[in-house]
Amino acid sequence: MQIIKHPNYIYNLTQKWRQENQQIGFVPTMGALHEGHLSLCNKARQENQKYITSIFVNPTQFAPGEDYEKYFRPFERDCELLRAAGCDAVFAPDAAQMYDAHSSTKVSVNGLTSLWEGAVRPTHFDGVTTVVSKLFHLVPAHRAYFGEKDYQQLKTIQRMVRDLNFPIEIIPVPTVREEDGLAKSSRNAYLNPAERQAATVLYLALQSAVKLAADGEKDIKVLLDAMQKVCALEPLFQLDYAAIVDTETLQPLHDLQIHPARALIAGYIGQTHLIDNCGIEG
Amino acid sequence: MQIIKHPNYIYNLTQKWRQENQQIGFVPTMGALHEGHLSLCNKARQENQKYITSIFVNPTQFAPGEDYEKYFRPFERDCELLRAAGCDAVFAPDAAQMYDAHSSTKVSVNGLTSLWEGAVRPTHFDGVTTVVSKLFHLVPAHRAYFGEKDYQQLKTIQRMVRDLNFPIEIIPVPTVREEDGLAKSSRNAYLNPAERQAATVLYLALQSAVKLAADGEKDIKVLLDAMQKVCALEPLFQLDYAAIVDTETLQPLHDLQIHPARALIAGYIGQTHLIDNCGIEG
Repeated sequence: MQIIKHPNYIYNLTQKWRQENQQIGFVPTMGALHEGHLSLCNKARQENQKYITSIFVNPTQFAPGEDYEKYFRPFERDCELLRAAGCDAVFAPDAAQMYDAHSSTKVSVNGLTSLWEGAVRPTHFDGVTTVVSKLFHLVPAHRAYFGEKDYQQLKTIQRMVRDLNFPIEIIPVPTVREEDGLAKSSRNAYLNPAERQAATVLYLALQSAVKLAADGEKDIKVLLDAMQKVCALEPLFQLDYAAIVDTETLQPLHDLQIHPARALIAGYIGQTHLIDNCGIEG
Repeated sequence: MQIIKHPNYIYNLTQKWRQENQQIGFVPTMGALHEGHLSLCNKARQENQKYITSIFVNPTQFAPGEDYEKYFRPFERDCELLRAAGCDAVFAPDAAQMYDAHSSTKVSVNGLTSLWEGAVRPTHFDGVTTVVSKLFHLVPAHRAYFGEKDYQQLKTIQRMVRDLNFPIEIIPVPTVREEDGLAKSSRNAYLNPAERQAATVLYLALQSAVKLAADGEKDIKVLLDAMQKVCALEPLFQLDYAAIVDTETLQPLHDLQIHPARALIAGYIGQTHLIDNCGIEG
């Protein structure tokens, strides 16, 4: 497994593989890898001859006061995990290699990104779409893998790829969960034992909506009530939002009949912001 | 010469040529081709094994009330000119093929684009950078050719390519001029004979600054005074701006000693907005 820091080198390597007619997968990450990331890697390995993982904690998607500086960066351990997962190359640039002092270009997806996570983090998704655009140019892969865990991010990237005609296929990968249902996330490491136990509430709330819908309930208000009631039972959880949305526009739905739907939930456990989501089958 | 309307087909053709190790040039245009465009084409032909020209009048770079609808679209004549210029393929999509109804992604370069042309046309450059991003993905060429005539556009695209790591080289091509110095432009066709004669004023004003600088004048105010005096002698010309700017930031210079400089000029002759620029050698 090659470890590459310089943007030109990763581009040249990817191009060389393309010239050899190798199919190339790409898994962009911020490191601190867990089983969620590794399921993206496994899918990338199955569907391609070569795959590249990037590890880059992107400063522009953190707001001032967020956890950019203290973000967990276990680089050696990440590389060991990737080696074991059959990764062909790791791209791990420095921030100074990715952004020069005069850098002033932004890629933004309007609409989708002003909702939900974007409502409280107004610059976050512009940071994500801009860095992903850069990475897609530096690693011209055939397909890129994103977790459904960050559903709004996945939908934003899919919209960007369609709108800007990026020649890459976006492959969504289902969320990996702990045994009690908590979605795997780098931020789970911030939870103390009591908080960790409380964090199951996000999954339980989502499942209450999933089950009602599966049993034939069509009234969105009933689903939302059920989610909120589950949340209210957990004193350590401060709900940010619980919503049933259209899978493409992420706009709240008034009716389960017409559109494919997704349940979204987010909130704080102590200082830690957690998000999760599930598909709703009407 | 192939004429291709569908985005997927032009991508597949370009990729096929890349697989054959052909070097590929790209000349993005809005059609209504004149000798300025053809000098881009000639350079693209000299420096590449294959070259592609796009003809697409991009609606998103026109503001309401601008000349999008009446923009001159002599498609058959353009194709004849390109055939004669050894062009390998023309990409001529419809607006509906380039923008779907939910399209909501924007590429923007801050700073550079709020000056000069951007000050009076606040959405123009976002339209340009967004469509050029799309075209660079659909036509993954090795190098793309842009005229120095639209200097702010050239500098904006160069900035975007650096910032987003587009794997393409931007080649600037000098302005082609009429015998009396008027820069070739599709919009010159809108001028009546008296206006056409008056339009030389832009070049004359630029040359007054170029000559003073070549003779050793270092005081920017003296250069600007000279440009404004030339403009004042032409009653049909309404000056928008005349400026001496840094070649990278396009910020007005206070001093000719330090930075490479460019003289910019813009204004109206009747209803027609004309722009021009020249390098200033101190």
